[in-house]
Amino acid sequence: MLHRAQLELCERIDIVLVSPRNPLNIGAAARAMANFGFRRLSVVAPFAPLWREARSAIGAPHLLQDAIETATLAEAVSRSTLVLGTGSLTHRKPEQSVVSLPDLPPLVARELASGGQVALVFGPEKHGLTGEDLSYCHMLVEIPTDLRQPSMNLGQSVAVCLYELASRAFPAEASAPEVESNRPNHAASSGKLELLASVVEEAMLAADYSPSSMRDANRHDLRLLLRRLAPSERDTRRILGLFRRILWRLKRVPKGH
Amino acid sequence: MLHRAQLELCERIDIVLVSPRNPLNIGAAARAMANFGFRRLSVVAPFAPLWREARSAIGAPHLLQDAIETATLAEAVSRSTLVLGTGSLTHRKPEQSVVSLPDLPPLVARELASGGQVALVFGPEKHGLTGEDLSYCHMLVEIPTDLRQPSMNLGQSVAVCLYELASRAFPAEASAPEVESNRPNHAASSGKLELLASVVEEAMLAADYSPSSMRDANRHDLRLLLRRLAPSERDTRRILGLFRRILWRLKRVPKGH
Repeated sequence: MLHRAQLELCERIDIVLVSPRNPLNIGAAARAMANFGFRRLSVVAPFAPLWREARSAIGAPHLLQDAIETATLAEAVSRSTLVLGTGSLTHRKPEQSVVSLPDLPPLVARELASGGQVALVFGPEKHGLTGEDLSYCHMLVEIPTDLRQPSMNLGQSVAVCLYELASRAFPAEASAPEVESNRPNHAASSGKLELLASVVEEAMLAADYSPSSMRDANRHDLRLLLRRLAPSERDTRRILGLFRRILWRLKRVPKGH
Repeated sequence: MLHRAQLELCERIDIVLVSPRNPLNIGAAARAMANFGFRRLSVVAPFAPLWREARSAIGAPHLLQDAIETATLAEAVSRSTLVLGTGSLTHRKPEQSVVSLPDLPPLVARELASGGQVALVFGPEKHGLTGEDLSYCHMLVEIPTDLRQPSMNLGQSVAVCLYELASRAFPAEASAPEVESNRPNHAASSGKLELLASVVEEAMLAADYSPSSMRDANRHDLRLLLRRLAPSERDTRRILGLFRRILWRLKRVPKGH
């Protein structure tokens, strides 16, 4: 779950799609924005019929309805103080500095903290941003990919960039635990483990699990095993119940069988 | 750019799609895998005509051709020692621990470093993973999203998860961690846990542990219990030996006793 402070800052970042062609990709970009709490979409010089199609798609989020359409990238980023271009850089020698996506969050956080406005710019599906487009960018963002297949789908690259910013560019609310658990998680006490060990040991004996000369060694191993497994209080009760039942049943086996 | 050490480790992670419907999503998942250097795709019980369509799609990466098709999730994850379920958790109370995606990389890195095998499981587009599917998972992964629009597109959620793992679960530079794959202390594979579960279940039945109407519920609980305990390979063998012995002995109890 994203927290309020994260969402407030996401709303201060413009997502700019330059001349997108495929309505599915436009829809996918808008959906990823909604997933990660971004609100401000600008579309530069879209191919008109497809843009109409994307906007009127059934179930299209309000984002698409509210999107700002501009004729040029210059207009779309005019209020931005930090313009970030995205895309594969394998065939270019960019003039700006290039930042790897995992290193981007602190830069964006600093810009927003100082009252700046950030724009994240995505190029058209086929060719990416042109040299002209890139000239509006303060910095380029590279998503680290496998060189054998560096080119990402537009909707997926939007999702990946927004995930990274939403989860790391902003402070999470103070007490978010790292791993949430929905079960009574506290470990069983040593005393409970000893009780379990004694019942399991009785079941071992009743099942002729090993010769009596092994009894001390088995008890020792069993104690260590239970501590490696570290069952919770509740799981310990469950296992105990099963072994008590097994033991009760084993005692009905006639002698010598 | 992803480094060699990162790519080598990505190749040791299974990506599992359970009953995907939309060929575009299957293709998008495969493309994200190629972008981030993942190689092992399994598809569980796909809808046959659509799966053929996805596989024969023009430009489909080799990944789809090489994908493993299985009838059940149990088969797909049988060699995995850490099975991670993904999906929106807004309407569920999961029984496993939940880890937020940004906190996942160190857990995966540790599992791979100790010679384990990791599987990342994605559910069908509409409903996500079922309770039965989740019972094979050691842990659930949650992508932090805006509560107003938590549900992500399949292809995008695969991209986001793989981006996170590829860029943070592995050391960036050449030194891959030591991998000792036959260490007896590594976690038991999902297949070994299933074997143990089946023997324990037989013992439960032989001991009349509970009415037969409870059989499915017990099997489900037992599967989750074993994943919480997460016994090592060696401990799993020990517990299996004890239960086999108990079972052998229980079968000698005369009828009606």
